[in-house]
Amino acid sequence: MASSVLDAFEELDEHGRAAFFRYLHRDLAPDPVAVGDAIARWQQSPSQQSVQRLHAVSESPRQALLRALNLGRDGTFRLVSMRSRFLEVLAEHPELEPVDQDFLHLFRSWFNAGFLKLHELSWNSPSSLVEHILEYESVHPLGGWADLRSRLEPTDRKCFAFLHPSLGDRPLIFVEVALTEEIPTSTDFITDLDRARQSSSRTVATLYSINNTYPGLRGIPFGNHLIKQVIAHVRRHNPEVTTFVTLSPVPGFRRWLEERPADETRGRRLAGEADAALRPGTTAEAVDAVRPALTAAARSYLLESTDSRGRPLDPVARFHLRNGAVLHRINWPASTGEHVINQSFGLMVNYLYDSGEPDPVAATASGHATSTHRSITDEETA
Amino acid sequence: MASSVLDAFEELDEHGRAAFFRYLHRDLAPDPVAVGDAIARWQQSPSQQSVQRLHAVSESPRQALLRALNLGRDGTFRLVSMRSRFLEVLAEHPELEPVDQDFLHLFRSWFNAGFLKLHELSWNSPSSLVEHILEYESVHPLGGWADLRSRLEPTDRKCFAFLHPSLGDRPLIFVEVALTEEIPTSTDFITDLDRARQSSSRTVATLYSINNTYPGLRGIPFGNHLIKQVIAHVRRHNPEVTTFVTLSPVPGFRRWLEERPADETRGRRLAGEADAALRPGTTAEAVDAVRPALTAAARSYLLESTDSRGRPLDPVARFHLRNGAVLHRINWPASTGEHVINQSFGLMVNYLYDSGEPDPVAATASGHATSTHRSITDEETA
Amino acid sequence: MASSVLDAFEELDEHGRAAFFRYLHRDLAPDPVAVGDAIARWQQSPSQQSVQRLHAVSESPRQALLRALNLGRDGTFRLVSMRSRFLEVLAEHPELEPVDQDFLHLFRSWFNAGFLKLHELSWNSPSSLVEHILEYESVHPLGGWADLRSRLEPTDRKCFAFLHPSLGDRPLIFVEVALTEEIPTSTDFITDLDRARQSSSRTVATLYSINNTYPGLRGIPFGNHLIKQVIAHVRRHNPEVTTFVTLSPVPGFRRWLEERPADETRGRRLAGEADAALRPGTTAEAVDAVRPALTAAARSYLLESTDSRGRPLDPVARFHLRNGAVLHRINWPASTGEHVINQSFGLMVNYLYDSGEPDPVAATASGHATSTHRSITDEETA
Amino acid sequence: MASSVLDAFEELDEHGRAAFFRYLHRDLAPDPVAVGDAIARWQQSPSQQSVQRLHAVSESPRQALLRALNLGRDGTFRLVSMRSRFLEVLAEHPELEPVDQDFLHLFRSWFNAGFLKLHELSWNSPSSLVEHILEYESVHPLGGWADLRSRLEPTDRKCFAFLHPSLGDRPLIFVEVALTEEIPTSTDFITDLDRARQSSSRTVATLYSINNTYPGLRGIPFGNHLIKQVIAHVRRHNPEVTTFVTLSPVPGFRRWLEERPADETRGRRLAGEADAALRPGTTAEAVDAVRPALTAAARSYLLESTDSRGRPLDPVARFHLRNGAVLHRINWPASTGEHVINQSFGLMVNYLYDSGEPDPVAATASGHATSTHRSITDEETA
Repeated sequence: MASSVLDAFEELDEHGRAAFFRYLHRDLAPDPVAVGDAIARWQQSPSQQSVQRLHAVSESPRQALLRALNLGRDGTFRLVSMRSRFLEVLAEHPELEPVDQDFLHLFRSWFNAGFLKLHELSWNSPSSLVEHILEYESVHPLGGWADLRSRLEPTDRKCFAFLHPSLGDRPLIFVEVALTEEIPTSTDFITDLDRARQSSSRTVATLYSINNTYPGLRGIPFGNHLIKQVIAHVRRHNPEVTTFVTLSPVPGFRRWLEERPADETRGRRLAGEADAALRPGTTAEAVDAVRPALTAAARSYLLESTDSRGRPLDPVARFHLRNGAVLHRINWPASTGEHVINQSFGLMVNYLYDSGEPDPVAATASGHATSTHRSITDEETA
Repeated sequence: MASSVLDAFEELDEHGRAAFFRYLHRDLAPDPVAVGDAIARWQQSPSQQSVQRLHAVSESPRQALLRALNLGRDGTFRLVSMRSRFLEVLAEHPELEPVDQDFLHLFRSWFNAGFLKLHELSWNSPSSLVEHILEYESVHPLGGWADLRSRLEPTDRKCFAFLHPSLGDRPLIFVEVALTEEIPTSTDFITDLDRARQSSSRTVATLYSINNTYPGLRGIPFGNHLIKQVIAHVRRHNPEVTTFVTLSPVPGFRRWLEERPADETRGRRLAGEADAALRPGTTAEAVDAVRPALTAAARSYLLESTDSRGRPLDPVARFHLRNGAVLHRINWPASTGEHVINQSFGLMVNYLYDSGEPDPVAATASGHATSTHRSITDEETA
Repeated sequence: MASSVLDAFEELDEHGRAAFFRYLHRDLAPDPVAVGDAIARWQQSPSQQSVQRLHAVSESPRQALLRALNLGRDGTFRLVSMRSRFLEVLAEHPELEPVDQDFLHLFRSWFNAGFLKLHELSWNSPSSLVEHILEYESVHPLGGWADLRSRLEPTDRKCFAFLHPSLGDRPLIFVEVALTEEIPTSTDFITDLDRARQSSSRTVATLYSINNTYPGLRGIPFGNHLIKQVIAHVRRHNPEVTTFVTLSPVPGFRRWLEERPADETRGRRLAGEADAALRPGTTAEAVDAVRPALTAAARSYLLESTDSRGRPLDPVARFHLRNGAVLHRINWPASTGEHVINQSFGLMVNYLYDSGEPDPVAATASGHATSTHRSITDEETA
Repeated sequence: MASSVLDAFEELDEHGRAAFFRYLHRDLAPDPVAVGDAIARWQQSPSQQSVQRLHAVSESPRQALLRALNLGRDGTFRLVSMRSRFLEVLAEHPELEPVDQDFLHLFRSWFNAGFLKLHELSWNSPSSLVEHILEYESVHPLGGWADLRSRLEPTDRKCFAFLHPSLGDRPLIFVEVALTEEIPTSTDFITDLDRARQSSSRTVATLYSINNTYPGLRGIPFGNHLIKQVIAHVRRHNPEVTTFVTLSPVPGFRRWLEERPADETRGRRLAGEADAALRPGTTAEAVDAVRPALTAAARSYLLESTDSRGRPLDPVARFHLRNGAVLHRINWPASTGEHVINQSFGLMVNYLYDSGEPDPVAATASGHATSTHRSITDEETA
């Protein structure tokens, strides 16, 4: 029966799906009478039994439905796809938000990081598995299978993924790692197919790309667990590696610089100078002249600009700093990719995971503050 | 941190554990003030948002704790073991029941049958896996590895299990199956190591033993899903098999017969006659003389005696009848095992899973009623 | 030591290799004195002992050397590569032929078909394995990984290979199979990525491409064993398949037609007409007009033209007819590939493996004769 | 066809088998006329071609037969079994020896150590594989599966085997290894199920048992290769291990001592004293009093007593000394096993594989001589 409900859903067109989700929203809400009864009972005798009853009757019947659908053939995969469809509808109909809470509640339980298994992907992995890297790598997209092979070379490149047993051979998330001699300051190393593979002194592991593959799992956190497990794994298998960094984009920098309220004129002028310095034919001196002001602005954006809840404005900074990393270096220009130019004038940064085994977690709380004082360098790059 | 909490728990002695669970019970209850606030808000405006908030604040903080512990090393396995310990304490301290509700709530979500994978175990499976059959088979215990091998002979014996990826190589539950020419009327076939393996006409699959291995998962249902998946699997791989039955114990029969209120004297007399007929040296005629009355009583026990909620009194009957099977035949004596004698004078029954693929579920609702009228046979066997 | 000899060989340039093989030829021959002694002994007493001794002393010491080298790291793979190099030298220095006899003697023993394992390759196979199909498919070369995936679609395409445990993940030989509704008359189906995958009536298995991957194993026969095992495998797993055919090239047809001694003028004229009919803009009628004569000539070439040992002149015909197949149909034009045009005016043929399980072998001896009378059809194609 | 010949052979009784092997011997010998022709040709022109021809015609047709049988179902396994049967017949009919030469010639080629794969067996290996250890361990037989598990505990016990892809899951040979803190002087550690598994200082790997499982492969050498590969493997995976020794039986010692020609009276007296010292109730002093003379005699037997070809008389000593080991220590009494008492008064020895990686082979030639002077110790132990 679960299978046939899922089959029926997948036959629906756009309108049918919207109607289905409206039905979930409107008709599958908790019964107000039962809630009222449970409240009366609790108010009369506020025991654990009565509060558990209150908890039970206030649970949306949608959750029971979703749990039952999970029993259908490929149920988990298809429910994740269903939420992906739902998110499209939600964008147009924000009033359906309560339905999303039920998806999230269940998915957080089902995809608890304790159930995810770290897998190392290699050129010996099934083609049906590694093809997903080709498809979902969006940070540094791959040109084809030769590129893919290059990123799976075991001597100096690695790829790790979380797989979930109910989601087949499509990873939930994967991270690509390069073992290098130095902390990289630009993306050139990624596409270098002719690099020397052998080296005795690869002491740096650079996590240069993290990608999710299931839109339907938006909001379920795995990235921090993946990074921690990957670092622990590399530490164990490549004891010569002592430094763990990222080479990360700064997605909101241009927009912030061009619009920051404090000194808009100055911000726009600096943005214009940065763009000018990147034009073909510019001299290295012209770039050098802009760099100090641009990296200072970037530092200010990354470490001092916060949202209303005090969190870093930049989403990537927010992720890594909360995750215990510190901002290590600001590199400009680090990439000539059009996307990176649009986001940040080609500027990218290294976050440093300085995790001695004992306390990868301890740093988390104070990550942001620490990083202000300790790790930012002034001589950012060449 | 999760790991160290689990480590600390596992160091505790009996008293320490009881104290820990009392702490969970007393100190990790929902905050009454927050509950009160959420109630007020809902009463003011009974929207989905306010009922979801009510649901959220009435959730026990124990659940958040258990979810966090699941992130520790072997977290899932160790939480299942923790509940096993908890159940020991609960037996002495029934007031801790609310804690069990939280274990159950999480485990039902985590071990949703949609996440379990059916595995066929064989003599080619790892020793570390099949040794659990040796350890946990309690219906027809194994004498040793030769016995085990005999039960994994692929020509006429099979064994299926649900494994969960976070619980290593110990199955959650397993079922043993024999492919036979006839519906078995006694347990003799189980221990027959010298049987002929080859046969062209094995059209009966007998599910003769189902065992759980995790006391900590008591109350989480997998048995019905396992049976359905096993039947579908055998149907696909052994198309010559057309009949699916069990050979099941009747655990409450003796007690019921000796104590049934309706006609206690007659019940006790029949019990005495059954025991007498089983004594060494009895003639076949003596057995035949008792059989009609004894099987009639068993039929009455299995199909007509219900608890206060209208369910069959016998737990095994309750399981199979609710699961869509019908009572097919009552066999006496079917086993001379001491345990079976104590439970049911050596009487055992076949439940028939007459599941044409389309509607294994359809039968469920009417399973009990149907079986009364249709499938019980009068010439039970010897 | 074996490893270092192999290392040293692999460092040699072209001249060094030629010198090495000349050394093997000249200096590693059997000792004539020992041979003379063994002859004398045998002539004196022609026992089994003395003939075994004669056999032993007449064995080239090269064989002992090659056996010892096989113990080196990756020894087998590197010896196969060594022979590949040797064959290049042999082409220039035919006097080294005795050295090849020793390679062949050992390789026939080592790669006895009894040691080869049939593997079914699929999109779930390691990338490092299936990439060899991309590299070595020369009959119908692949455009890339999308093409490769299409040829590994399990619903209607299959690929089988012999792997040898000492040669890693590069197959010795592989065959590609399409399950189709009809016996194919042209190569169009091979590159059809948009075909319907599902069909209830695929009763034909077409073996449309066989490729070897190791030049160093030239002359070691596996193809016939592979075909027989593949047919048996498909028969077992796809019982709906009842017809096994090839779609094969006719590599020597053009040359034969243009040069055949019997009636050279007529042959050349027909070749010219065939070429003219293939030119762009030709009408279907023009093609139809040439077809009867061209297919009759092809039939004559394939079934009546033999070499001095009475074997079919055409190497592909020789292989399949000796292997028990019969010539089933001549298709023209079957391919517009330049290579096929050059070989055979685009003409290709189906060989039919009519192997009822019991006697795949029985047909072998009379394969050729049978095919003359029985299976060639006159209405070859459209 | 190959399969049916093998089937027919396996149906034969003892007499049938003897007749079959006599037929192989008598009727499948090389053709004397062809041999005579090839001789004449070679004498006329002693080229490589003519000696290769001589080699070819002097090959027994039995080899072609065996190669063809290898193509049958399970051909390799069944030919190995056939030789096992043949060896039984050969023991009664030594005149059939030439047939064995052909088996040996083929098997040496097929089971060239370059084709064998080292496998580490563990408790996670298939039961169908590890049960062969139970069956074929004859040096220190196992009491059952609990014993087996103990010998596969990964923390301090290991087991390695050579498997051949055509012989299924029965290893050709396996060796059991214990990681210990000291070089063991008795067999007590083998059966100690209650030992402490964890230890930080296991620097000694003791190869305490080597067993072959195929009687039909007698005379095909794998033991030396296995030992070298195992040492290399442990060295790589357990870098803390620096010492590799055996604890080996001395099978011919008692017989030699009781019969040695030089001083028979003295030998018999010493043997009597050794036996007396082993009787129940003997004091440690009585043992100590006999030890110096007994170990001196053992040293003399092992290192100075050679056969007509100058090789050590003792077969185990011959194997290890030729393989590059040196005699390290003589232990008495090392075992109270009846078999060991009968062979050597319970005396056992350690052979030391002092193989620094670079030259495991270099030691081979001088192994015996070296050991006389260097490694035997005088304070043998109790």
